[in-house]
Amino acid sequence: MNEDPRPVGDPTRGQKTRDEIVARALHMAAKGGFAAISIGTLAKELNISKSGLFAHFGSKENLEVAVVERARVLFHEHILVPIEEAGLEGVERVWALCDNWLEFVQKPALPGGYFFSGAFFLCVGQDGSIPNQIMEIMCDWIITLREALDGARKLDQLQSTVDAERTALELNAILIGAQWSYLMGYKNRKRPRAAILAMLGRIATENIPPTAFDSVREWKNYLEDIHTDAQKL
Amino acid sequence: MNEDPRPVGDPTRGQKTRDEIVARALHMAAKGGFAAISIGTLAKELNISKSGLFAHFGSKENLEVAVVERARVLFHEHILVPIEEAGLEGVERVWALCDNWLEFVQKPALPGGYFFSGAFFLCVGQDGSIPNQIMEIMCDWIITLREALDGARKLDQLQSTVDAERTALELNAILIGAQWSYLMGYKNRKRPRAAILAMLGRIATENIPPTAFDSVREWKNYLEDIHTDAQKL
Repeated sequence: MNEDPRPVGDPTRGQKTRDEIVARALHMAAKGGFAAISIGTLAKELNISKSGLFAHFGSKENLEVAVVERARVLFHEHILVPIEEAGLEGVERVWALCDNWLEFVQKPALPGGYFFSGAFFLCVGQDGSIPNQIMEIMCDWIITLREALDGARKLDQLQSTVDAERTALELNAILIGAQWSYLMGYKNRKRPRAAILAMLGRIATENIPPTAFDSVREWKNYLEDIHTDAQKL
Repeated sequence: MNEDPRPVGDPTRGQKTRDEIVARALHMAAKGGFAAISIGTLAKELNISKSGLFAHFGSKENLEVAVVERARVLFHEHILVPIEEAGLEGVERVWALCDNWLEFVQKPALPGGYFFSGAFFLCVGQDGSIPNQIMEIMCDWIITLREALDGARKLDQLQSTVDAERTALELNAILIGAQWSYLMGYKNRKRPRAAILAMLGRIATENIPPTAFDSVREWKNYLEDIHTDAQKL
């Protein structure tokens, strides 16, 4: 007997099952790469037949494409959406991108180190839907950082000589390195953030007091002050 | 007719075939991870039967273990052996470790980004022979860097307050970030090396003139000078 009041053919229901398959497959892939996605285990966990599960995607590759898309959405939701909603700009936006990235790679939403760093190192130079998707996400991320740096420069918060693309790569390098250390068991939260602030401090203009970059606490105090001042105006 | 003068059962011959299988399997894995190792393709390329190939290892996992071991040997040969042979110590040894690492990840010996960065991100947190081997290699690498930094401190070339482990992780972060940028297509050789020198310059004592860290060229000039002086003594 079907307890769900909606008919079996209901597209919403099909979509819900599909979403659940993708969410669980992403969890598997995050821990052990795409090779770790087991159709058998997925079918068992969701109490559906293997062929029923397969019907949702048509092929293992299509399931993998859906998994990367879901990872991309999670990345977007955790890193970019809060920044857009808060309307952050200038150096504060650059900082928030890096800070949120560090938070995201340590989220239980994506255990392990596979997404996206492992996938990137694994896929680079290969042809195919998955490598293309992963490279696109990596390029988008560098562009997002670069545009935030360009925006901060236009607001005269960064020196006019700053090479936004180069700085984007350098910030990204700090993030990837920090993820590596984190996964090796060095779980200090402050060090990578201090390195980000030190880099931003070196390229900022006098429009931001240099002491604001002294520590994460100083930076947060500075942000609090400017937001309080803005409210007063 | 067997052109090889050695008998078929010759252990040297068996070892040679085994080595060749491992070398080719490593090449495959370097480009696309362990999933890319195809027994069928290997057998075809080496003109032996699949079962003949399998007999050398007994299981796919044993072949993978041999592949990681070979990657470890290559890593050792390219990065550590030249430094030992030249008897480098102090800050010069730290520099050479980083410089050789950067050279190594761009070698055609190991195409792609899988070894070791991709494998690390993929394997971290997993149980099994391969994850254990990879984690061991990564830990050994951090220890090698840390010991080189400790050695440089004992020679009074680095400030006594330097935290060798923390600095090892920071140097490693620059390297991993540089590999990432390189694989993304940013193939500048000087930038990561300049970042390494900048970090070493910040923690060096006055026993090394600060100008030696100004650029890769200055550093090489400095090294050349001290080696010429040493020969004169």
